[in-house]
Amino acid sequence: MKIYGDARSGNCYKLKLICALRGLEHEWIPVDVVQGETRRSEFLSLNPNGQIPVCVTDDGEVLTESNAILFYLAQGSPYWPATPLAQTRVLEWQFFEQYTHEPAIAVARFIKFYLDMPAERAAEYESRVKAGYRALDLMERHLASHAFFVGQACTIADISLYAYTHVAPEGGFDLDGYAAIGAWLGRVRELPGYVGMED
Amino acid sequence: MKIYGDARSGNCYKLKLICALRGLEHEWIPVDVVQGETRRSEFLSLNPNGQIPVCVTDDGEVLTESNAILFYLAQGSPYWPATPLAQTRVLEWQFFEQYTHEPAIAVARFIKFYLDMPAERAAEYESRVKAGYRALDLMERHLASHAFFVGQACTIADISLYAYTHVAPEGGFDLDGYAAIGAWLGRVRELPGYVGMED
Repeated sequence: MKIYGDARSGNCYKLKLICALRGLEHEWIPVDVVQGETRRSEFLSLNPNGQIPVCVTDDGEVLTESNAILFYLAQGSPYWPATPLAQTRVLEWQFFEQYTHEPAIAVARFIKFYLDMPAERAAEYESRVKAGYRALDLMERHLASHAFFVGQACTIADISLYAYTHVAPEGGFDLDGYAAIGAWLGRVRELPGYVGMED
Repeated sequence: MKIYGDARSGNCYKLKLICALRGLEHEWIPVDVVQGETRRSEFLSLNPNGQIPVCVTDDGEVLTESNAILFYLAQGSPYWPATPLAQTRVLEWQFFEQYTHEPAIAVARFIKFYLDMPAERAAEYESRVKAGYRALDLMERHLASHAFFVGQACTIADISLYAYTHVAPEGGFDLDGYAAIGAWLGRVRELPGYVGMED
């Protein structure tokens, strides 16, 4: 299995993390987003949508969309729970992550951390930070009474949301007021096999 | 089963369509987004994220996120295919829909069709139209050699993407150049039990 990704991208880190937690062997092929490598024809022939991560299975199947790849890599493990209702809950949080959380927190981080806050994106940054705190508020409310997002153990819902939440301070977010999120981040970090984004 | 939704919203129409295709009985409870009903405390106590649709099962489970609810309602039917690889392909297109397609096409439609194109959102509209055509190009490329998005029959990937694509002209999109999309829209419309957004 090959994974094309940029180690600093939360969407790519999701796959690095589940591979570490499950002990899945893979070859990591670095792709540099900031240098425009996802817009080159060689990469677009792999994923016409120009996004990372991309996973190529040993059978040559090309998989895209980080949360769909997580679903694939979680099959046969507790990271994808057994009942349709629990599976639906996992997908609810994964769609929340891609629609509400990532466009706010990941993009704010990109503008601040990678682009060093260009003046012409300052208003957009403020708007994304506001939306990001709203997403964090919803997570805090849920985690105040739940150890993990679905059920009693880590699923791919947690992996999806952990990816950009744990680096939210790089986007200018202050997590000090989010005690339940802080405790949950700690529970994920303590999982056997855990690997950090920079490791 | 109860579904809280706004008939003009593509995200809500997804559920109306799968219920019609599968013959699933339900009570439809109208919620008017434009009148701000999703921001009232009564609705927020149902879904703190303030989004429609919401599905309440006969067991009282409150389900959110249109594509996750589609997954739930498709269980035990061919709309959710049988193999992990085909299931991954369905999720790829559903995440594409929520991350790339909906924020472009649905929001452009909202600005033009519901808000009547306020001057202060004109630049945003143009940017979303550009992104929308890019999403349509990706769909056209896939549908040029596939009857449906995954496998040989309609799945929830098609239902997700049909919802806002078939009303894209209300957002100012010209679908005339998209022959494969046009043929696919026709195939969905011909499905036994099909119901339109306005029906």
